[in-house]
Amino acid sequence: MIERQDFKKNVQPILDWIDFYFQNIENLPVKSQVKPKEIYDEIPTTAPKTAEEWQVILNDLTDTILPGITHWQHPNYHAYFTANSSIESLYGEFITSAIAAQCMIWETSPAAAELEERMMDWFKDLMNIPREWEGTIQDTASTSTLVAILTAREWKTDFKSNEYGVPNNLRVYCSTQTHSSIEKGVKIAGMGSRNVVKIDVDEHFAMRVDLLEKAIEEDLANDKIPTCVVVALGTTGTVAMDPLKEVAALCQRHQIWLHIDAAFVGSAFILPEYHHFLEGIELSDSFTFNPHKWLFTNFDCSIYMVKNADLLINTFEILPEYLKTKTRGQVNDYRDWGIQLGRRFRALKLWFVFRGMGVEAMQEKLRFHIQLNTTFADFIQNSKDFELILPPFLCFSCFRFKPKNESNLDSLNKLNEEFLQMLNQRGKVFLSHTKINGQYVLRMVIAQTYVEEKHLEIAINELREVAQLIANKS
Amino acid sequence: MIERQDFKKNVQPILDWIDFYFQNIENLPVKSQVKPKEIYDEIPTTAPKTAEEWQVILNDLTDTILPGITHWQHPNYHAYFTANSSIESLYGEFITSAIAAQCMIWETSPAAAELEERMMDWFKDLMNIPREWEGTIQDTASTSTLVAILTAREWKTDFKSNEYGVPNNLRVYCSTQTHSSIEKGVKIAGMGSRNVVKIDVDEHFAMRVDLLEKAIEEDLANDKIPTCVVVALGTTGTVAMDPLKEVAALCQRHQIWLHIDAAFVGSAFILPEYHHFLEGIELSDSFTFNPHKWLFTNFDCSIYMVKNADLLINTFEILPEYLKTKTRGQVNDYRDWGIQLGRRFRALKLWFVFRGMGVEAMQEKLRFHIQLNTTFADFIQNSKDFELILPPFLCFSCFRFKPKNESNLDSLNKLNEEFLQMLNQRGKVFLSHTKINGQYVLRMVIAQTYVEEKHLEIAINELREVAQLIANKS
Repeated sequence: MIERQDFKKNVQPILDWIDFYFQNIENLPVKSQVKPKEIYDEIPTTAPKTAEEWQVILNDLTDTILPGITHWQHPNYHAYFTANSSIESLYGEFITSAIAAQCMIWETSPAAAELEERMMDWFKDLMNIPREWEGTIQDTASTSTLVAILTAREWKTDFKSNEYGVPNNLRVYCSTQTHSSIEKGVKIAGMGSRNVVKIDVDEHFAMRVDLLEKAIEEDLANDKIPTCVVVALGTTGTVAMDPLKEVAALCQRHQIWLHIDAAFVGSAFILPEYHHFLEGIELSDSFTFNPHKWLFTNFDCSIYMVKNADLLINTFEILPEYLKTKTRGQVNDYRDWGIQLGRRFRALKLWFVFRGMGVEAMQEKLRFHIQLNTTFADFIQNSKDFELILPPFLCFSCFRFKPKNESNLDSLNKLNEEFLQMLNQRGKVFLSHTKINGQYVLRMVIAQTYVEEKHLEIAINELREVAQLIANKS
Repeated sequence: MIERQDFKKNVQPILDWIDFYFQNIENLPVKSQVKPKEIYDEIPTTAPKTAEEWQVILNDLTDTILPGITHWQHPNYHAYFTANSSIESLYGEFITSAIAAQCMIWETSPAAAELEERMMDWFKDLMNIPREWEGTIQDTASTSTLVAILTAREWKTDFKSNEYGVPNNLRVYCSTQTHSSIEKGVKIAGMGSRNVVKIDVDEHFAMRVDLLEKAIEEDLANDKIPTCVVVALGTTGTVAMDPLKEVAALCQRHQIWLHIDAAFVGSAFILPEYHHFLEGIELSDSFTFNPHKWLFTNFDCSIYMVKNADLLINTFEILPEYLKTKTRGQVNDYRDWGIQLGRRFRALKLWFVFRGMGVEAMQEKLRFHIQLNTTFADFIQNSKDFELILPPFLCFSCFRFKPKNESNLDSLNKLNEEFLQMLNQRGKVFLSHTKINGQYVLRMVIAQTYVEEKHLEIAINELREVAQLIANKS
C-alpha cells in the first residue's frame, strides 16, 4: 500500500500513462471495436490476494481495458452529445479527488458549499438569469429533471404527496421529441407514465403551444391537474428549441411548474447572441444545463437553478439528529437540494475551468465549434451523396446518405444504417443516429474540446470514402 | 487554455499542491473553523474574462478555499462515517477523469461495463454472496436504497405503478434507527411517508422481528400491501445490526422485498469472521454497501447487488431510438440499472485499489481499525470522566462525558453538547453526535485510511484535555 507521503514518488507512471493516452488518442479507434465479453473474460475471476506491481497494472490498463474504451475525448467523437473535459477541469478533478471531502452539508465543507453558491452567481451573470434565482450542482440532467418533477409534484399538492402518496391525476407535459428522462422521472416520482402528455411538434420539431394549451384545457375539464411542463431547449434527436416565452405565459396563466431542460445547448447561453432563447425564464420555475456536456468540465456537473429555493428544500429536506448543526438556516446545506445525501466537491472544477481558461476563451471555443458545424453543413449541402435533413444549428447537423439513384424510404433507411455501421467500424470517427419522420438519419455533433479544422477534414473524408465503398459494392 | 500535449508540462504545480496537502493535512484543523459567508464573500462576484496564472489560482486555493475544507482524509477525522480515499484509488480517479468516458451503455465504453461486472464477481467471491446475484455501482446509498424501493414498488404492483401511478397502500418497514434515506426514498417514489412503518428496536437497537411480524399482519388485515423491508446492517446512529436471517424468513413467507442496507459496515464483509452477519442474504432481494466509506475507494462508489437483475431492469428500462444498439440483450447496459443515464467509469478505481493493495492488506487494515477501536473503548471504560454507552463494535464507539458529580440528564446533555463543540473547535479531532434514549452522546469512528496508533493517542489526549478544561470552568 502506498503511503501518503509517497504520493508524488509513485505518481509518475500514472502521469506517463495519461500523457501517453493524450498523445495517442487520435490514433485509436474512436468507437471501441471489442466484442461482448472479450474484456470480461480476460479479467481474473477473483481479486488478487497481494499487491501487484504498478507497471503490471498499467500494462493491463493499456492491453486489456483501453481497447474497450470508446473515446469521448477524441476530437472525432461526433456521436450523441459530447461529454467534454479539458486539462483545466482535469486538474480540478485531481484536487477534488485528493481532498475527497464529503460535501453533504455546509459544515462538512463550507468552502464547497460557498464556492458552489458563487459559481451559480457567475452563471446567472453570464446567462442573464434573474439574480434572485438560486442553484446547485446535480450529477446529471436525468437527476435535475427528476428533481424538477418532484418539486412540481409537491408544490402542486401543497407538499402532501411526500406524506400521503401521489394522486393519480397529476399531469406532466413535454413534446414528443423530449428526452426519455422525463418519462423516467415521472415513473420514479410515482405519477404514472400515463400522465405524461406528449405534445406534437411543428415542422421545426418544436412544441406546438396551441396543442399544449388544448391539452391543458382538456385536462382541466376532466379533473386532471396540470402540474409541470418541461420545455426542451435543444431536444435530444434534433436539437429543436421549444418556444419558451409562449409556454411560460401559458404556464403562468394556469399555475403550472415550468422546467427548462437545456442539458446540452445551455452552455451556448454564455454567448450573448443566444440569450434570446432564454426569454421567458423569469416566468418559469427551474432550469438545467450540463457544463459536462459542452463547457469543458468533467462529468458529473449538471447545473440546476430554481426561482424559489424554498420549494426545492421543502421537497427534499430531512433532518435526523446526527445531521443537526448550529449553522442551519444561515447557509446552504445542499443535501436538501436534491436526492443524494453524499456529494463531491464539484464546484472546484468549474472554478478551475473559468479561471484557467477565462470566459472569453470559452466563448471563442463555442463559436469556433458553431463555425465548424456551418462548414460541415455546407459540405453536406453541396455533396451529391448526402442530403441535409435539418438546417445546421449550433454544433449540430442532421443528414443522411442519399445516392442519386435511391429514393425508397426503406432502402434508404437500411442503407444509412449500413453506412453508419461501416463508418463507425473504421474507427476514425464516431457518429450516432436518430429517426425523423420515419427516416433513419445521421447526427453530427462537432463540439469536442480539442476539435480542429483538420478533424473536420478527417470526418468529411471518411464520409466520402464510405459513400464510395458502398457505391462500389452495389 | 492548456493544450492536451502540454498536460504533463503543466501538471507539476497541481501535484505539488496535492503533495503539500498530504504533507500538511495533519497540521490543519480537522473541522473547518470558518464563519458562514466568509469564503463566499472572498470570491469575486463575476467570472474572469481572461485566463489567470495557475500560481494565482493555486494560491487562492490555499488561502481562500483550504480554510473552508473539513478534512475527511485527516487521520483524526472521527465524525459521522469515514469517506475514505487511498493513493491507489486516487490514481484510479486521475485516469478515470483523463479518459472521461460516458459509461451509460455497453457500447459507449465496453471496458467500463465489463470491468464493473467483474468487480461485482470479486465482491461476491469475497463476501460469500450467491453467485447468481448481479450488481452495479450506484453513486450513494441514498440512491441504492431508492432503487431498491422502486424495484420493490414495481415488482409488488406487477410493474404497473410505473405506468398508472402508485397505490396509496404500499408499506415499507424499517427500524426506528434506520437511515433518513429510507423515508426520503419512499417520498421520492410517491408512496407517501405515512406508509413507512418504523419498527421498535430491542436493547441493542436492532429491529424486533416479533414487532415487524405484528405490523405486517396488521397491515394485511387492513388491506395494506407489505412491499419492502429494509434491514440495516449497521444503523446510522449506533451501528446496530438488524437480525437479517429472521427477517428474511419472514419476508420470504409474506412475499416482501427485502433490502439490506450495509452502507458503512458492508466493507467489513470482506473479512470471513463477519460473514455470519450476511446469513439470510440468499432469501433477500437486494444489498448495498459503500466502498467509498470504509474500503479506501473515492466517493462515489456504492455497490448495489440484486438477486434478480431482470426485476431491476424492468423497473428502469428506457429505449429511445438514439440509444438502440446492436449488442442490446447480450451485454449489461447499466443505464437501465438505476436512475441516471450518464455514468462515470467508476469500476476503475476499485480495480486499482484491489490490485494496488491486494485483498490481504485491505483485510489487515480493517482489522487494525477494529483493534484501535477496542483500545479506545478500553480507555473510555477505564476513565473516570467518560462512560461507554454501547459496547465497542467494529470501528465504532459510543460514549459520553460524565463527570462524577453530574447525573441529571438535561445537564449531562448540555454538557456533552458543550464538550463536543469545544473539542471540535480545537481542531485536532472531529467527532459527531447522536441521541440515544434521550441522551446526547458522542460517536467515535476510527477508520480513516491512514489512521495510526499515534492518532488514537492524540484523540485520547484531546478528550482528556477538554474534560479538564470543562472541570476547571465549573
